[in-house]
Amino acid sequence: MADEMILHNIGKLITFPGEGPVPGGSMNEPLIIEDAAVTIGEGKITGVGPGKDIWDQADLSKDAECIDCNGKCVVPGFVDPHTHLVFGGSREFELGMKLGGASYLDILNAGGGILRTMKDTRALTVEQLVEQMDRRMNKMMIYGTTTVEIKSGYGLDVDTELRLLEAIGASNHPMDRVATFLGPHAIPPEYRYDPDGFLDLMISMLPQISRSGLAEYADIFCERNVFDLEQSRRFLTAAKEAGLKLKIHSDEIANLGGTSMGAELGAVSADHLLVSNDKDLEAMRKNGTIPVLLPGTLMTIFEDRIPRAIEMMEMGLPVALATDLNPNCMVESLQLIQALACYRLRMTPNQVLAATTANSAAAIGMGDRKGRIKEGYDADILILKEGSFDHVVYNFGVNHVDTVIKGGNVINRDIGW
Amino acid sequence: MADEMILHNIGKLITFPGEGPVPGGSMNEPLIIEDAAVTIGEGKITGVGPGKDIWDQADLSKDAECIDCNGKCVVPGFVDPHTHLVFGGSREFELGMKLGGASYLDILNAGGGILRTMKDTRALTVEQLVEQMDRRMNKMMIYGTTTVEIKSGYGLDVDTELRLLEAIGASNHPMDRVATFLGPHAIPPEYRYDPDGFLDLMISMLPQISRSGLAEYADIFCERNVFDLEQSRRFLTAAKEAGLKLKIHSDEIANLGGTSMGAELGAVSADHLLVSNDKDLEAMRKNGTIPVLLPGTLMTIFEDRIPRAIEMMEMGLPVALATDLNPNCMVESLQLIQALACYRLRMTPNQVLAATTANSAAAIGMGDRKGRIKEGYDADILILKEGSFDHVVYNFGVNHVDTVIKGGNVINRDIGW
Repeated sequence: MADEMILHNIGKLITFPGEGPVPGGSMNEPLIIEDAAVTIGEGKITGVGPGKDIWDQADLSKDAECIDCNGKCVVPGFVDPHTHLVFGGSREFELGMKLGGASYLDILNAGGGILRTMKDTRALTVEQLVEQMDRRMNKMMIYGTTTVEIKSGYGLDVDTELRLLEAIGASNHPMDRVATFLGPHAIPPEYRYDPDGFLDLMISMLPQISRSGLAEYADIFCERNVFDLEQSRRFLTAAKEAGLKLKIHSDEIANLGGTSMGAELGAVSADHLLVSNDKDLEAMRKNGTIPVLLPGTLMTIFEDRIPRAIEMMEMGLPVALATDLNPNCMVESLQLIQALACYRLRMTPNQVLAATTANSAAAIGMGDRKGRIKEGYDADILILKEGSFDHVVYNFGVNHVDTVIKGGNVINRDIGW
Repeated sequence: MADEMILHNIGKLITFPGEGPVPGGSMNEPLIIEDAAVTIGEGKITGVGPGKDIWDQADLSKDAECIDCNGKCVVPGFVDPHTHLVFGGSREFELGMKLGGASYLDILNAGGGILRTMKDTRALTVEQLVEQMDRRMNKMMIYGTTTVEIKSGYGLDVDTELRLLEAIGASNHPMDRVATFLGPHAIPPEYRYDPDGFLDLMISMLPQISRSGLAEYADIFCERNVFDLEQSRRFLTAAKEAGLKLKIHSDEIANLGGTSMGAELGAVSADHLLVSNDKDLEAMRKNGTIPVLLPGTLMTIFEDRIPRAIEMMEMGLPVALATDLNPNCMVESLQLIQALACYRLRMTPNQVLAATTANSAAAIGMGDRKGRIKEGYDADILILKEGSFDHVVYNFGVNHVDTVIKGGNVINRDIGW
């Protein structure tokens, strides 16, 4: 089968060698090819290398598309491994409360926060959810994201949680999606005095969700005033038995032991990790659990502390980064997260690139086909407006993505938003 | 003369009442008109009000342009009152040094930093400078900036400083520009052992710069290892005598007394102000000096402390915000600065809007014609993609500007970048 596309005149192609997650810190060296070209056939990458070699070996179809990259930098499409992007409504009105000093838990306890979104979400049909989701995914893709993980968790009842998972699958958007069931994201008002009853209800959904393929992962918010360690263990153990892969929200505000517990159960990732301790980091390393850090959320909850990104990388952990896109952190752009990780977490440009491509793909179990520019991998590729990736974090706050190639198709950057 | 344009179906028009700077804090209430319209003639705003009234009173020319704002939010074009956007080269390679812990002064002392940019800048002709400047102004305008202040200061010799000021005036870009002579921005290597000799040289340029109209303001970097308090006073006093208006870079790293001294000399603004004390704030209030805060720079120099924005506003100071766009803080987007001011400095959305429109216009002496949507003011207006301005800071990292109206002309948001 002849190739349908060639990207040529690439000034600098940056990807990572090998496959799977890239261990952090000093080992984190990218693979850089100058004057490169890439061939694409049937949505997959068929060749990557110096332009001269690729032109020589290319088997292009008669009407193959030749894209001149004008000497610019080309990187893998970004993978966002932690979002809550399917929900109803907007919570911009809470900014005032937060600027007045209210904490995330204050707002939650005052009946705002997640419970407000729950009401707005329960009111929507699958079609309405898809419409809001697509609008957010348009923005994400314009800014370079080509694959996302999406969690349910704003329904907090059986019907709405299923509707959310259905919406994730129902959209025709070109964005690749991985669905995570996060039923135990908060305790809904109906179960205020019976959190274990709610947890039982969510656990009862697991076999159906797994069988139907509505979600690939299960996740729980292990946090003070939400679900404690034993509740979290109970839910994740049941999810594992039902055949789902695991994730955990842990150590965002209080350290309840969720990270270590999740890692021991084989969680693919543990996310947030602001207050993780040495034991948690070691448990992640031992079990191959990927730390997913969320610097956008630190901004929107006015948190001055930072997670231990540098130490994690020095231990060899493959740090991944995500937007955490949700009504309390309305950030679609992984480019912004890359800059925050650099300026706030002190990760280098190469480290943030690994953290939003190879490592974030591994954090959603797609390290074997996403997050690299490599033969056989999906043809999700970004042509930047500049000659280096460093420029993306150096010159932050503007969109550096010129062209998105998604599954071998050119997505115009003006796709309706 | 009939009007040439009407913006109608504006869901929410936000501007500020009165004229001149808006005192901060609790007094900082915007003027909001719902279902509004605006008429424009000869580049000026000719009418603002409820759509019904404006349609009734409008005197539109036969071929007047009618722009439907689709119920979205409309705000004044943003004014960026502190930039160094005319320079040569790029310093993205310093990110690594900075992530390794080098301070601004470390990099400066190691011969990098500003002296590297000086070399790259000296090598350029006026035409080359204009080309780089225009590219940066394109990005700024796409993100909503319609007026900028631009400082010289990367030439650090007579010829190049004059060339920089010439470039600011020579560009045909639609962006409105105010030029500031910042000759004493650093001590060039030629004068390493004779800083006063360099200062004398810069002072000797002042009469010519004032007479020729090449700059409207003079500015100096009053800082440890740069220019001390007495040198700064000497320069600003001479600039004032030459007929230039004054600005000062003060209290960024060390407090040398520059803010109080500048305010007492009648400086229009004092900028940075990270380590200003009570006396400095009081001197600004007494003398009508506007504090210009630069939260982007705090990020790029890895500074965790913040300037006293809230206290300044509570004292009634009209806080302004700017990008500080320079090779050490490559930020064109005032939308990003607005978000950082909100999440880091804890200013409210209304306060950041005042700080980037009415107050930033006042900080460059243009409060009587820029920074408001008001009859007689320049027709610099933004149509946002959303129905509120809060959304710009809530949903940060993406461009919320749909259409830029600059001096009554529609600037397409895809103007070549």
